[in-house]
Amino acid sequence: MALWFREEASPGHRLEWKVRRVLHSGRSAYQEITVVETEDFGPTLALDGIVQTTAKDEFIYHEMMALVPLTAHPAPERVLIIGGGDGGLAREVLRCPWVREVTLVEIDPEVVEVSKRFLPGHAVSFADPRLTVRFQDGARYLEELPAGEAFDVILVDSTDPEGEGPGRTLYAPPFRRQVLRALREGGLFVQQTGTPFYNPDTVREVSQDSLAVFPVVRVYWCVVPTYPGGLFTFLAAGRGTDPSQPRRPVTWETRWYSEAVHRASFVLPPLLADLVPRVVQVAQQR
Amino acid sequence: MALWFREEASPGHRLEWKVRRVLHSGRSAYQEITVVETEDFGPTLALDGIVQTTAKDEFIYHEMMALVPLTAHPAPERVLIIGGGDGGLAREVLRCPWVREVTLVEIDPEVVEVSKRFLPGHAVSFADPRLTVRFQDGARYLEELPAGEAFDVILVDSTDPEGEGPGRTLYAPPFRRQVLRALREGGLFVQQTGTPFYNPDTVREVSQDSLAVFPVVRVYWCVVPTYPGGLFTFLAAGRGTDPSQPRRPVTWETRWYSEAVHRASFVLPPLLADLVPRVVQVAQQR
Repeated sequence: MALWFREEASPGHRLEWKVRRVLHSGRSAYQEITVVETEDFGPTLALDGIVQTTAKDEFIYHEMMALVPLTAHPAPERVLIIGGGDGGLAREVLRCPWVREVTLVEIDPEVVEVSKRFLPGHAVSFADPRLTVRFQDGARYLEELPAGEAFDVILVDSTDPEGEGPGRTLYAPPFRRQVLRALREGGLFVQQTGTPFYNPDTVREVSQDSLAVFPVVRVYWCVVPTYPGGLFTFLAAGRGTDPSQPRRPVTWETRWYSEAVHRASFVLPPLLADLVPRVVQVAQQR
Repeated sequence: MALWFREEASPGHRLEWKVRRVLHSGRSAYQEITVVETEDFGPTLALDGIVQTTAKDEFIYHEMMALVPLTAHPAPERVLIIGGGDGGLAREVLRCPWVREVTLVEIDPEVVEVSKRFLPGHAVSFADPRLTVRFQDGARYLEELPAGEAFDVILVDSTDPEGEGPGRTLYAPPFRRQVLRALREGGLFVQQTGTPFYNPDTVREVSQDSLAVFPVVRVYWCVVPTYPGGLFTFLAAGRGTDPSQPRRPVTWETRWYSEAVHRASFVLPPLLADLVPRVVQVAQQR
């Protein structure tokens, strides 16, 4: 039997991966959760039909989202992850020996359950005693966060804002103000801003709106082979620390991240620079 | 009618683009030539079923292949393009006012004919009096090149070596020795080395084999959204000039290339660095 997983990247573009086995297929309270083992990328998690992470290429996204802020911040000890229920981002964060505590706030317990069963390479982080998992809406968690409970680094690893999934509120302006309130002095915030070839509005709007909230706003990029168009962006913002400069060495093996890649990832090709506010472009060209 | 163009990136991965119109479909003496107008990328040329170039994203490939060597070389006046029958690469080369003569050696006259009709944004270069077109096998052309007819920059813009198409001989060691012979002192050679997520052997073998021929061997990369996996590589080699350093300013508008992008494109993430010889890695880390 020839089984293929098909993602509709746009009304005019589809990506298809040959499936060896369907590992999980179900609907949680929040979304449709599918895990298929694909021929090219191994176990692959899709939410509402959109590929989120695969065993073979996840290291790029997770290394770049974790290690850029965690090497740029001078002393990041307390880290908050919103989303990231597969555990892959927490794994990269916990590789940094200087990180003392990680709180992971995932809205959907079934994403964590399914990842523990079918994405063991990602979910290995759930065994780390430095990690606390809470099943709660991330925006709500920040609203209710007691004063004095702030973080050095806040990472938002969620579904895209375009769909109907639970990621939507994490891209709204009120959420960013809560993030700022929850960041310690010098703190850094990183959020995925999608594939600019298919969704240029996400990085455009998020970088523009963030200027009204954060003293420092930057954009960086990498390549994720299983996302449409390959080109993929992140917002990095915060309270004064420049996220484009690594300050701590990564002494373990990485496959996409390096100090030189860290710096180069903030060099925006004109097509990307044109999507971000002028003040951000200029800051990154210095 | 819903018409889709499907490319088989690997036995386990397919890319599909919705087609508005089939502009051309035929077989030349060398290959199957298809031009479709896709919803997302406009006119799209495929050879033997593999997308070569599209109206919407071609600027990335062509800017990076042309402007890296043409700004790194101290005084490039004579340029040879092997392949490139769509005209897009010649267009970027001819944007450089310091280029005096371009010879384009394309094996398949029908690629040029079809491009003139259906890819006018690419084929605009054929009207430039500095361009001479020859319909000949590129390897044969170099073999027969009279001594004293050498070039400052040689660019090979061909189909991949993996298929059965006419690009194969352009990746064989004898061809590279002919390239070296046809390069003036300080000359630079750039060749596309494909998508390393799907064909890691191309960049691995070409960079390894090139060390036996060229005093300088480097690898750089960009993102081409319509190629599988997005990540795309080039070999840059030559007779002494370091291709990673831009020496001349580009004063016209570009959409991917910039001086900073030029430098950053030689920063290899570990997964790419691991594919190239150690001596190349080390040279690029300095």
